[in-house]
Amino acid sequence: MSDLFPGVPVIKFEGPNSDNPLAFKRYDPDKKVGDKTMKEHLRFAMAFWHSLTGAGRDPFGDPTMKRPWDSVADPMEVARARMRGVFELTEKLSIPYFCFHDRDIAPEGASLRETNRNLDQIVALAKDLLKTSPTKVLWGTANLFSNPRFMHGAATSPNPQVFAYAAAQVKKALEVTKELGGKNYVFWGGREGYETLLNTDMRLELDNLGRFLHLAVDYAKEIGFSGQFLIEPKPMEPTKHQYDSDTGACFAFLQEYDLLPNFKLNIETNHATLAGHTIQHELRFARDHGILGSVDANQGDELLGWDTDQFPTNLYHGTFMMYEILKNGGLHSGGLNFDAKPRRGSFTVEDLAISHIAGMDTFARGLEAAFAMIRDGALDRPLADRYAAWGSGIGASIRAGKESLRSLESAALDLGEIALRSGRQEELEAIVNRYL
Amino acid sequence: MSDLFPGVPVIKFEGPNSDNPLAFKRYDPDKKVGDKTMKEHLRFAMAFWHSLTGAGRDPFGDPTMKRPWDSVADPMEVARARMRGVFELTEKLSIPYFCFHDRDIAPEGASLRETNRNLDQIVALAKDLLKTSPTKVLWGTANLFSNPRFMHGAATSPNPQVFAYAAAQVKKALEVTKELGGKNYVFWGGREGYETLLNTDMRLELDNLGRFLHLAVDYAKEIGFSGQFLIEPKPMEPTKHQYDSDTGACFAFLQEYDLLPNFKLNIETNHATLAGHTIQHELRFARDHGILGSVDANQGDELLGWDTDQFPTNLYHGTFMMYEILKNGGLHSGGLNFDAKPRRGSFTVEDLAISHIAGMDTFARGLEAAFAMIRDGALDRPLADRYAAWGSGIGASIRAGKESLRSLESAALDLGEIALRSGRQEELEAIVNRYL
Amino acid sequence: MSDLFPGVPVIKFEGPNSDNPLAFKRYDPDKKVGDKTMKEHLRFAMAFWHSLTGAGRDPFGDPTMKRPWDSVADPMEVARARMRGVFELTEKLSIPYFCFHDRDIAPEGASLRETNRNLDQIVALAKDLLKTSPTKVLWGTANLFSNPRFMHGAATSPNPQVFAYAAAQVKKALEVTKELGGKNYVFWGGREGYETLLNTDMRLELDNLGRFLHLAVDYAKEIGFSGQFLIEPKPMEPTKHQYDSDTGACFAFLQEYDLLPNFKLNIETNHATLAGHTIQHELRFARDHGILGSVDANQGDELLGWDTDQFPTNLYHGTFMMYEILKNGGLHSGGLNFDAKPRRGSFTVEDLAISHIAGMDTFARGLEAAFAMIRDGALDRPLADRYAAWGSGIGASIRAGKESLRSLESAALDLGEIALRSGRQEELEAIVNRYL
Amino acid sequence: MSDLFPGVPVIKFEGPNSDNPLAFKRYDPDKKVGDKTMKEHLRFAMAFWHSLTGAGRDPFGDPTMKRPWDSVADPMEVARARMRGVFELTEKLSIPYFCFHDRDIAPEGASLRETNRNLDQIVALAKDLLKTSPTKVLWGTANLFSNPRFMHGAATSPNPQVFAYAAAQVKKALEVTKELGGKNYVFWGGREGYETLLNTDMRLELDNLGRFLHLAVDYAKEIGFSGQFLIEPKPMEPTKHQYDSDTGACFAFLQEYDLLPNFKLNIETNHATLAGHTIQHELRFARDHGILGSVDANQGDELLGWDTDQFPTNLYHGTFMMYEILKNGGLHSGGLNFDAKPRRGSFTVEDLAISHIAGMDTFARGLEAAFAMIRDGALDRPLADRYAAWGSGIGASIRAGKESLRSLESAALDLGEIALRSGRQEELEAIVNRYL
Repeated sequence: MSDLFPGVPVIKFEGPNSDNPLAFKRYDPDKKVGDKTMKEHLRFAMAFWHSLTGAGRDPFGDPTMKRPWDSVADPMEVARARMRGVFELTEKLSIPYFCFHDRDIAPEGASLRETNRNLDQIVALAKDLLKTSPTKVLWGTANLFSNPRFMHGAATSPNPQVFAYAAAQVKKALEVTKELGGKNYVFWGGREGYETLLNTDMRLELDNLGRFLHLAVDYAKEIGFSGQFLIEPKPMEPTKHQYDSDTGACFAFLQEYDLLPNFKLNIETNHATLAGHTIQHELRFARDHGILGSVDANQGDELLGWDTDQFPTNLYHGTFMMYEILKNGGLHSGGLNFDAKPRRGSFTVEDLAISHIAGMDTFARGLEAAFAMIRDGALDRPLADRYAAWGSGIGASIRAGKESLRSLESAALDLGEIALRSGRQEELEAIVNRYL
Repeated sequence: MSDLFPGVPVIKFEGPNSDNPLAFKRYDPDKKVGDKTMKEHLRFAMAFWHSLTGAGRDPFGDPTMKRPWDSVADPMEVARARMRGVFELTEKLSIPYFCFHDRDIAPEGASLRETNRNLDQIVALAKDLLKTSPTKVLWGTANLFSNPRFMHGAATSPNPQVFAYAAAQVKKALEVTKELGGKNYVFWGGREGYETLLNTDMRLELDNLGRFLHLAVDYAKEIGFSGQFLIEPKPMEPTKHQYDSDTGACFAFLQEYDLLPNFKLNIETNHATLAGHTIQHELRFARDHGILGSVDANQGDELLGWDTDQFPTNLYHGTFMMYEILKNGGLHSGGLNFDAKPRRGSFTVEDLAISHIAGMDTFARGLEAAFAMIRDGALDRPLADRYAAWGSGIGASIRAGKESLRSLESAALDLGEIALRSGRQEELEAIVNRYL
Repeated sequence: MSDLFPGVPVIKFEGPNSDNPLAFKRYDPDKKVGDKTMKEHLRFAMAFWHSLTGAGRDPFGDPTMKRPWDSVADPMEVARARMRGVFELTEKLSIPYFCFHDRDIAPEGASLRETNRNLDQIVALAKDLLKTSPTKVLWGTANLFSNPRFMHGAATSPNPQVFAYAAAQVKKALEVTKELGGKNYVFWGGREGYETLLNTDMRLELDNLGRFLHLAVDYAKEIGFSGQFLIEPKPMEPTKHQYDSDTGACFAFLQEYDLLPNFKLNIETNHATLAGHTIQHELRFARDHGILGSVDANQGDELLGWDTDQFPTNLYHGTFMMYEILKNGGLHSGGLNFDAKPRRGSFTVEDLAISHIAGMDTFARGLEAAFAMIRDGALDRPLADRYAAWGSGIGASIRAGKESLRSLESAALDLGEIALRSGRQEELEAIVNRYL
Repeated sequence: MSDLFPGVPVIKFEGPNSDNPLAFKRYDPDKKVGDKTMKEHLRFAMAFWHSLTGAGRDPFGDPTMKRPWDSVADPMEVARARMRGVFELTEKLSIPYFCFHDRDIAPEGASLRETNRNLDQIVALAKDLLKTSPTKVLWGTANLFSNPRFMHGAATSPNPQVFAYAAAQVKKALEVTKELGGKNYVFWGGREGYETLLNTDMRLELDNLGRFLHLAVDYAKEIGFSGQFLIEPKPMEPTKHQYDSDTGACFAFLQEYDLLPNFKLNIETNHATLAGHTIQHELRFARDHGILGSVDANQGDELLGWDTDQFPTNLYHGTFMMYEILKNGGLHSGGLNFDAKPRRGSFTVEDLAISHIAGMDTFARGLEAAFAMIRDGALDRPLADRYAAWGSGIGASIRAGKESLRSLESAALDLGEIALRSGRQEELEAIVNRYL
């Protein structure tokens, strides 16, 4: 293990009474919760882009983050340091996975060929590091949004050459993800949308996006990549409107283009709230439709209108997210990826470690609360009770397809006043609080 | 024609220089725009609930509206006056259609049987009035949201008796709509959603909603109602989350439950903005997916977070909406329904007329602007230019399914820098302004 | 004590392990936290309008709430029952105060004289009940928003007769509040604002609002009412814009009209979020400016754009609110008023009790967490550390007014790189979680 | 005049029928509107930062803009080119002013001394160019937000050295603004606020901000700078909360710190909408309080939650803004500064010119519409009518301070039902449309 971050020790579990900021208070990796360990349930991942490449820039300010490679000039040297860094940090923090974009891990060169050569060198280093490390790759992806060539879209660019370039990039990223043993491959379409409908052929662009994803599926089969494909909903930012706006829009798209057999969703908390939904809604929708694949675990500020990508410290989010995930039977090949960055003013390496610890403790506590609620039937019993009438009588008959408007009218005409039961929302909210 | 509204004369077209508030400045019903008259293009409808039943109540205040039947005690007498009123107002305003909920037009009785009898009496009156009036019914619907029995949902209630009751109501509303010659039948699911996921079985509720709509389709076939079925997206309000949240969610739902052959959408401006979308986006999405059915023409206040249902006076909305509608080949059986209410402080009958005039003039102007832009290719020519490369070469080859990631990589590796062209957003916005 | 609510027992503290929904888990009224009891710290109040008068209506639905007086026809009889009810419920729930509007407690009559007579009768009953009850009045107010006469404003109406009418109502409400021993008098200006600037003379309206409040101050002096005056910020709803939009706008207004000596603020959680602020921000701003008077303790849904007035169950709110209140030395004559209503689907009397219990437990837990954080200096120590440099050297010199741009430039020119310290946001968030 | 932008000709007025994107359709600089020319009314300014320094970066993407100096390596050479460029562009576009931050026009050096030397060189060049150009400086300011040293605030930093550094920068910027004949000096406090209250001493920070502004006022007197000081409201972004959140908060602050005699506001459209207000509201509030100083003329997207800084093309904004400005007797020393950037995909120099033209035509049209409405009394007459009752009788008596709650109650008790008149909102909206 490298020692680029001497200020970050190997993080130990010290329990809830510890006030050591560089210790876990709740996350105890090997503690059993039910029949799995916390580590197995939570499947944490570090986001290469925020933690190793992120610099603290914002739309009104220059980079602030202090990192060990700040004085290194050669971009390939920096890339090597960062790759060693991701292994060092994940190991010190007991984070079992990391995620990356192609352009996070290696610098672009003067041509696509040179860029690919850069990538190959870093991938070779990563492969080497993987051999001796407990850390693995959760997912890879291609950055199809930063370079100016993607300003009007990648798969949805008005320029077919851009489509071709993006296709070449995805091909390489798939190969790299396979080579590094990635469990999943993600598409986030940050430029797949529009700035204004005045200049946009939405129908053509959606068709092209469908085609693009099918090409990726075909190529994965060709090279034997068996990881799960994921698309990641986000409604806006950077563009005015992105086609993958929320889980509903993604489910519509996957059905329309016959991609349901191949794709699940990578759902992000802050993207959910930007779309006007709770993260629990988005996870529930995906779970109910069999497309819950993986999670980008962060949080936004619901009073701010952009993607703040904060480290997740809200215990309600942690609890409700783990509730949906446990109900889903876990995330399977997916995981909880910290797509989060320390605030721009939290610029030290220690902040980076502390931020991850804060997030991990939040989800550990959420896991325990959610597990206990499920074990106790705290929400399931009232729910079963509430919908019980659908299991017999006219409820069962409706579900069995045996009723018509005509037969239901007959029944309704003879009903007296229908006896409703309270929805008990406040009582249920108080019950959840008891588990926090 | 009744004369309940002596303060509202027959409204005439007086041209743009008129300052008579009770005259059209832009809407000239028989004026040809292309090969159709304004009246044929615009297919305006009055909303019975806002214009005849609406009283000016808000969450913090009591009714304000002054209406001719304010001193009438018998609810059936009021209902008859209102039905006469909708014919009088639509005729005076040259509005060719009206829309209604079952409970707008007739009061609920002590039992469903009595309620249906009330409805039958008013429907008989309406049928009579239709015979001699130019006014027609654009669409009917059932109010499945006001009565307390629907507090937890109608088709998605946890109580199957409520489902049955709602089914009976839809059966009757379909019969009534057919009897009155309604061109469409609408579902707006204001209670079909949830207040909290803590007490909600979303999967069951969605399935039940799918079943419910199929029952309606089956019954329409049985009775020979050939009008178009429509569902109306709205993301929230009254509930925390409604399942028909936006056009994307509706398209997902219609595909999932195999309802695409039977349903289109009734899209409302203020519902679009509550979902975080422009009305143009929602219309475009529906048009591109063949599900643009009808429009609830109002406007919200984009800085307020609830459904203000204002009369549409924004010329940009009018223009962009008519642009999408013209591109759709018109609304076919649908129309522009003023699902709008005068502000609570605009309480006179004259305000009601003036509000409709304001909305009609807005759409007349929007129609003329949109028509001219299409005629001139003002936006089409730049658009064709922008996407031209998809018609030949590698663009055409991609669209024809002849390329793979491998072939595209080959092409991309030999591309030099890709020459992009400006998106020209500001130029296009300035062009639109020239047409206003 | 009446027994209108037989389903609601006297609520006991049963501790955190109780799963009795009709018991306190955290709120133990006589438990000492520091040198005051929970009851003394929290000063809970019941809101007459939501709990006794509220019916469960929403903009799309009719009343749902089941209350003991539902079958009583005489409005004065209903009013008497409700007044007995507020004493019964507050006593059973150990809530020491209630708050009311004039029109909550007695029905309007055919004239202002008759309305005042109605009010007098109910006030006499209340006075009688106060004698033998531990319950007291936290504050009174006049409802200047429900009646249609206030549709265009009360103090800010374009019609001076409305101003006069509102003045008469405030006069009476002040007298009544004094008679019932109210500790404060509140103004919430739900109609004091505008729907559109097109018809609004904002300057005149603001001046009139200033005048109106001075008249109230003068009259309070005249009759010897020594309670605290409060205004209540809310940015919008029911109007497009209300002048008391947030704490900043209120502070501007109070300064401008020389009302700071007489007024503090009554700050509501959901109003804060509608204004785009956290409740902690609004409390901090008020505290820092010496105008934190009282609190309307509820919560909104930050993804919904209207005033949902939910019972407060979010432990973060409870903690941060009590943090600011403790730092303010308590609320003095103010209290925590549950300006909250059970969800429309929580229609039983038991829900009403459970909702209050949920809110009280939330604040009890928040109180304990905040108290412990303050006791431990959990946030104070890092804060003192962060700003320490302002206590000496150039920091102290700046604060003492001894520096100029010129002197500071001299200092700055000789500074090398300024050593900044991390803002530690994530670490502080994790610390707060340790106290929950 | 330099010829850095050969693709941009001198822009001519060609009238509304021109379809030349590089011509004015509405802005005819010397056309009289009332007794002033369009140029005198509108006082347009170019924003140096967006138009000369802006590169098209966004949070997810790299620079896109193509500019003549892209291949120049020496930052001082680039700075000189840009300074020549601002004169060339403003002259070609008939824009009479430009605005700048210190760091826009000259690069930072290794020390403050070196930075100031850089600035001096560019200022000397600017001074030279000013001699022969019609272009003038509308306002200058200091960039106290981009450099990492300001990450936790400038005047509100927890570090007094940062305060000192910021003071030094303002001192120099004031000197430079004076030297270049700037008409105003602006403060925008993009880092003057907080990310989290957990680490913030708001009281201390506000006091320091007050002190800072007084130091600037004192120094301006010392050096004889007589331009108008302006602060610029914005509620958030980059920080979670900025102290100058809206016009109300600014008015509160200016009163509290006794800065009203020295400061007015520079109000930006997109900042208004981020604060939940219309631009007309913010202008009206400032006008009514005598603090309307200058305008940053852009527009946001009301469905997006960040500062999009789009070029203003919305004719309603143009009209309502000019309405308030005309009612204010013009902007006096202020102007309409295009604090706007072409969309990232509008990357050509031609787009930059076309964007300004679009904005200028929008305001020209808004000026003519607003002027005509005022000339015709289109809104003033209904307004006078609506408030007429405040001019006599009890209205006048209230305004004269002759009434009390007691006297008003006497009056109210004898009022019958108060006759209200409609607010006529829809009618007024239709009237505005007639002027567009």
